[in-house]
Amino acid sequence: MRLTRQTDYALRTLIYLSLNEDRLCTISEIAETYDISRNHLMKVVQRLGALGFAETLQGRSGGLRLARASEAINVGDVVRAFEDDMALVECFDPDTNECIITGACGLQGTFRRALAAFLAVLSEYSVADIARSQRKLRRLLAAHA
Amino acid sequence: MRLTRQTDYALRTLIYLSLNEDRLCTISEIAETYDISRNHLMKVVQRLGALGFAETLQGRSGGLRLARASEAINVGDVVRAFEDDMALVECFDPDTNECIITGACGLQGTFRRALAAFLAVLSEYSVADIARSQRKLRRLLAAHA
Repeated sequence: MRLTRQTDYALRTLIYLSLNEDRLCTISEIAETYDISRNHLMKVVQRLGALGFAETLQGRSGGLRLARASEAINVGDVVRAFEDDMALVECFDPDTNECIITGACGLQGTFRRALAAFLAVLSEYSVADIARSQRKLRRLLAAHA
Repeated sequence: MRLTRQTDYALRTLIYLSLNEDRLCTISEIAETYDISRNHLMKVVQRLGALGFAETLQGRSGGLRLARASEAINVGDVVRAFEDDMALVECFDPDTNECIITGACGLQGTFRRALAAFLAVLSEYSVADIARSQRKLRRLLAAHA
């Protein structure tokens, strides 16, 4: 049970942007600081823009920033939006499900409740909450800039 | 976010065994009924035995059965035992983690709480609970036997 790398990078990017709310950041600086693939990050940033979590400004003096205050960006919302595949078990996806006991088996309901509990915890937190240790975070990011 | 096929098959096998508690079942009949790979199921059954969820008896009249009553086999325990990789995000695995903000970032704690909530829900259920619709289950299994 793992989240995708996209979700992971999306959250790291939002943390980065929340610590630099006063300016536009670039994909290159974020990729270099975290030492992650620039190409991979580019796709993440496009999605962050399309989903309304970040604003991207094109052009030479372009860059990206949070679309709203970090307090108003919910971690549960980000995970829900980025995890395309929340089909914990086969029967969650009616298009591909071949399990013959679907409908009689109690697992689907049980896993749905467990997933809801998982997401409910994430929804208690904003990007500001997970980036609360600002001084520590700034120090670590600066050391790798 | 998906569970492994092994975990899925382990739970289906336990449901099957719980509906046939009065006799020994064979890997072949379970694989045929669910229309799943016999080889894959064999590995699952070996693990179910090693982990103490099922008992396997070798030989011509051999087979497998639950190691204890289905009421005493907890779904959360099965998922915890079968999901080797509960490293939701990179920083959950200190051996491979390269994220530079580990320790300052609030995500690790947040995801740990979410995962605990997920498993807590699963731990409310036994194999008997998820196989409660016995008549329906028996009908579906018989139709594919």
